[in-house]
Amino acid sequence: MHSLTALFEPTSVAILGASSDAERIGGRVLRFLVEAGYKGKIYPVNKSGAAEVQGLPAYSSVSAIPGTLDQAVIVVPAGGVESALQECIAKGVKGVLVLTSGFAELGPEGRAQQDKLVAMCHAAGVRMIGPNSLGLLNVETRYFATFSVALNGLQPKPGPISLATQSGAFGSCTYAMASLRGLGFSKIAATGNEADVDVAECIDYLAEDPSTRVICAALESCRDGERLRRALLKAAAAGKPVLIMKVGRTELGAAAASTHTGSLAGNDAVFDTVFAECGAYRPQSIEEMLDIAYFCSVTGRLPSNGDMGVMTSSGGIGVLMADHAGDWGLSMSPLPESGVKATLELLPFAVAANPLDVTAQITAVADGTARSVDLMLTHGPYATVFAYLASAGLSPQRFESTIASLGALREKHPGKDMVMVMASVPEVDRRLEAIGIPVFGDPSRAVLALAGAAKMVERRKALYRMPVASAASQALGDVSTEATAKRVLGEAGLPMLPERLCATADEAAAAADGMGYPVVAKISSPDIQHKTEIGGVILHLQDAEAVRAAHATLLQRARAAVPNARIDGVLMAPMLKGGVETILGVHMDPTFGPMVMYGAGGTAVELYRDVAFASAPLDEAGARALVNRVRSSALLRGWRGAKPADEQALVNAICRLSEFAMAHADELESIDINPLVVRENGAVCLDAVIAKRAA
Amino acid sequence: MHSLTALFEPTSVAILGASSDAERIGGRVLRFLVEAGYKGKIYPVNKSGAAEVQGLPAYSSVSAIPGTLDQAVIVVPAGGVESALQECIAKGVKGVLVLTSGFAELGPEGRAQQDKLVAMCHAAGVRMIGPNSLGLLNVETRYFATFSVALNGLQPKPGPISLATQSGAFGSCTYAMASLRGLGFSKIAATGNEADVDVAECIDYLAEDPSTRVICAALESCRDGERLRRALLKAAAAGKPVLIMKVGRTELGAAAASTHTGSLAGNDAVFDTVFAECGAYRPQSIEEMLDIAYFCSVTGRLPSNGDMGVMTSSGGIGVLMADHAGDWGLSMSPLPESGVKATLELLPFAVAANPLDVTAQITAVADGTARSVDLMLTHGPYATVFAYLASAGLSPQRFESTIASLGALREKHPGKDMVMVMASVPEVDRRLEAIGIPVFGDPSRAVLALAGAAKMVERRKALYRMPVASAASQALGDVSTEATAKRVLGEAGLPMLPERLCATADEAAAAADGMGYPVVAKISSPDIQHKTEIGGVILHLQDAEAVRAAHATLLQRARAAVPNARIDGVLMAPMLKGGVETILGVHMDPTFGPMVMYGAGGTAVELYRDVAFASAPLDEAGARALVNRVRSSALLRGWRGAKPADEQALVNAICRLSEFAMAHADELESIDINPLVVRENGAVCLDAVIAKRAA
Repeated sequence: MHSLTALFEPTSVAILGASSDAERIGGRVLRFLVEAGYKGKIYPVNKSGAAEVQGLPAYSSVSAIPGTLDQAVIVVPAGGVESALQECIAKGVKGVLVLTSGFAELGPEGRAQQDKLVAMCHAAGVRMIGPNSLGLLNVETRYFATFSVALNGLQPKPGPISLATQSGAFGSCTYAMASLRGLGFSKIAATGNEADVDVAECIDYLAEDPSTRVICAALESCRDGERLRRALLKAAAAGKPVLIMKVGRTELGAAAASTHTGSLAGNDAVFDTVFAECGAYRPQSIEEMLDIAYFCSVTGRLPSNGDMGVMTSSGGIGVLMADHAGDWGLSMSPLPESGVKATLELLPFAVAANPLDVTAQITAVADGTARSVDLMLTHGPYATVFAYLASAGLSPQRFESTIASLGALREKHPGKDMVMVMASVPEVDRRLEAIGIPVFGDPSRAVLALAGAAKMVERRKALYRMPVASAASQALGDVSTEATAKRVLGEAGLPMLPERLCATADEAAAAADGMGYPVVAKISSPDIQHKTEIGGVILHLQDAEAVRAAHATLLQRARAAVPNARIDGVLMAPMLKGGVETILGVHMDPTFGPMVMYGAGGTAVELYRDVAFASAPLDEAGARALVNRVRSSALLRGWRGAKPADEQALVNAICRLSEFAMAHADELESIDINPLVVRENGAVCLDAVIAKRAA
Repeated sequence: MHSLTALFEPTSVAILGASSDAERIGGRVLRFLVEAGYKGKIYPVNKSGAAEVQGLPAYSSVSAIPGTLDQAVIVVPAGGVESALQECIAKGVKGVLVLTSGFAELGPEGRAQQDKLVAMCHAAGVRMIGPNSLGLLNVETRYFATFSVALNGLQPKPGPISLATQSGAFGSCTYAMASLRGLGFSKIAATGNEADVDVAECIDYLAEDPSTRVICAALESCRDGERLRRALLKAAAAGKPVLIMKVGRTELGAAAASTHTGSLAGNDAVFDTVFAECGAYRPQSIEEMLDIAYFCSVTGRLPSNGDMGVMTSSGGIGVLMADHAGDWGLSMSPLPESGVKATLELLPFAVAANPLDVTAQITAVADGTARSVDLMLTHGPYATVFAYLASAGLSPQRFESTIASLGALREKHPGKDMVMVMASVPEVDRRLEAIGIPVFGDPSRAVLALAGAAKMVERRKALYRMPVASAASQALGDVSTEATAKRVLGEAGLPMLPERLCATADEAAAAADGMGYPVVAKISSPDIQHKTEIGGVILHLQDAEAVRAAHATLLQRARAAVPNARIDGVLMAPMLKGGVETILGVHMDPTFGPMVMYGAGGTAVELYRDVAFASAPLDEAGARALVNRVRSSALLRGWRGAKPADEQALVNAICRLSEFAMAHADELESIDINPLVVRENGAVCLDAVIAKRAA
């Protein structure tokens, strides 16, 4: 049994702080539970000694409750939470839900109080949601343990969607928007301060929960990256769509987030990367999240491909939907020849293509709508066929026979889905939904919903693989100069030039003679990180004489710029021509560990942010996928008639760097290889900087 | 009076082809008119000689109708349209609405028939909408001249929004979506084949129409760019928001458009540019269009700035809205110190910032919502303040007093707008809308609506100015080589190097000596357009000897590559170092005339499409705005410590090129200046190609 079962599916519950005043928080929680008709036992606990609270027998302490107790809901003031928790633990509860606020969100003192609660729970093997949680809902068992006023106006309807959210207010907003459009829920949890249970663990539970078919989630931060990854991967393995929002994306948003929670917003690109790698989808708005959840919960699955067919009574709407398919990465394969032929036999007036424009004349063809959709499902490769039907759904009587025909189609094409796009009345929507057909009023939102679902399908073809065991971290040694950084990276398998650190001008000239001209000379000092800024790099050296002069100049410049710098000597290297400049790096994310970065070199990195991230470790396929996500990778592939660069060498370098980052995860802060030049044969790191974490 | 008045506001109408069968098209049109209670006179015309059609006295011909006639609606089969039109012209109608299809959309024969109708209308001074129009609606006069089945289920509600659309089906979809959410209309026109009246002219009419406050429009193509520009500018001058959609944006969409209409989709970037320059906004979906229309029609105006304040009972939703503000170019100024102080006095528990997080405790403060909004309106610079109120709108009774307070606020801050974001019942929405306050359920859509409105405000600060009179086009002369193209552009004021066309090696050497080394040599031949491909450019020539050799080599290579090429000689130029490479060009759009293009040079043009367009002519401010729209313009402004480039020289070059394009609009096809190098002092065109239009 999942350790959160007692929280999501309690058979008995005590309300500590249950009030007779149904408007106060402690009273509201009890009222909602009673009004909902919760199927388990409810024990109001109230220190006042009242015999009854809101018509139920009341208890003055938890210990007075007869028999065993699954869960306790704590609504007493913050000062009383600790002793309340103690009572509950003594009684042997398996889960506690702390709705009371006034803990870590207030500052260090509150955090200390909160940490005490966590320690008590850990010691007793009790799971806790909260403190500062807005509550928990289990719609099947009518367990409505919340004080959200959204329940005042909107009764939960059962359905296959579950929601785990850190922010209760965000949850209320989502709940209200969903309820107003008729969507039903299975479970809803607001994790609040996440002292013990976090959103990730709720996702883990929901991945197992047979009543949940679609998981919605909302994060403000994440404290345990590995747990989140594992939970998302578990949901992916269970075939459940995961729609996860994280607010604080943009600079404006991040500024608002820091005044709001006081917690630093994680690096947003890293969240994007982790969600994608673990097969989840990140909607940009609550409505988009609900559209995708609706889509998948009605069809009951994710589509088997991202290819869409469109049957439309309006050419213009067909083009609009095709525009969106292009915008959002869906394909629209042409209608195959057999389909064109069959279509023109049935509908000689149609534009037999994809979109299939059946024109307004379709209404004159008996069962025209269903027969047109059937043609697309039968002849096309589309996992999803949209039918744009103008206002057909406004007349339930006239549309009745079409519903019957669509039901038959659903059985005829069990692996494929249909989506109706039309103006309609709720009665028609509910009839269609009951046979697995979603209905959208806005053509754009219909396509966006499929796009989100298809994105998950695509991502789940190549999911992130958790590292089997984190190998004991190896000592990194000295990496304070370009020469030492390059040495350790070279030993790790990254491609380096035959460079030499030369103490004297004669050594430098001899090394250059051995390399062949032209050569490059760079100052080497652990005290000089930014060599170019002090003139510490001299290029285009054509002979031994020039090398000797450069050696002297570099030493002089270094001493002038940083008087007491420790100077190792001058690093000599052959000077390369040609090749494509790229940038390769590693950033240690505090939550998610080493992230590998690859991107366009030169000014494009900063101007166009043409870079992509991937979690280490990366296998070859992962490295290739990373390269493919960067636009300037086109430059590697025979740009404007140039010879293709050695992409395999780049892929190898990425893999080696990722292994290196995993092996030294404990010590690393970041690695920058800029540029990594990818040549016709091979690749070469021209500069490398490794930063260790402050101890 | 506007020439379309008789079409949009007829006081009497004849229906040619009116049928007794209310399900047939001719019958449906009449039924809708009768059911709507059209305020003018209706004359059914039916050749059958029936005395009555659907309860109205019928006429066997138009000439039999007593008195004068404003408009005729033609619904007879295509073969009868010409004679029907003749009858109407003889009767002296001012406008005809041809609903019959079967004309230009079928091919050349249909087009010829259609052209005949147009000629008849022109000769008689009659305006025509259609053929192949879905109809016209004037909701105030209850003039519903359409056969759209959308009217079967959804009765039009009067309102300040008008819609002009080429595609009738697109119009029906928009109408249905709007009606289902309670939006009302003033006028709706579907222009169909646009043989005479097009969407642009409808916009022109609606810009004058006092009942129309917001103009929605949808194009599939545009035949008269100048008319569209003038109409959009007129609407902008009238202060009316224009929301204009054009489908066929993406490659997928454009492919669908070409199977659909047979017409080539215009260059999409050009439409974007023209809409923006003329102060309109292009929504990406019908829902977005309706959200912005709703926003502006309820507030009754465009906001005076794009700065938004957010008051929220949920921190998370505040951050989400701030994220969107960042996404969509809105600003969120901080709450000024005075506002912070006043807020903390009233709401000590709040996060006194923007977003202003009032937390759920706001419900405990008397009139807390309105007072918080008042603080933001009073102290902040925000033209628009959003209030996120969770589910407050679900309880009309409890919300009653807040509505009253908000009404008072509206009077206290007449230049500013409030928007409520919450779950609500329609009753509450209607109450708020009546006092000028829009209500949104989804926080994201609320912000997107403001973003669209604010974009129009920003654009209208610097609208396109129509050229006063198209100056007589000057003859372009010979521009077949780089040398000749550069000469004419140089005469037009574009900055050129002191180049010389040299017939002999000695001339070349002498020219180079005069210029100073290094120099560049390029073959000059009207028969060789792509010089680099044949090795026709030699760089880095360091002395006279090298120049002589290069001269010989170039002639040799040219003769080898293009045996009978006419060779003018070799073009000698000094070789430049440094500066920022940009690209500058002109593209003659068949609809909108010369479009100036500016962008990043090098690979970035193709990789990142970092270019922007503007309609010629451009004044200095316009040229600056064009430069600002290109990301790589950052390279001009002291990138990474480099000295700033001479942006004024770039701006001058853009202005001169735009003047040149206007002066030669009749002959030009395109101009490419690639690269234009912008230096610390001045700028220089290093290469130029001018293509003339095929005669």
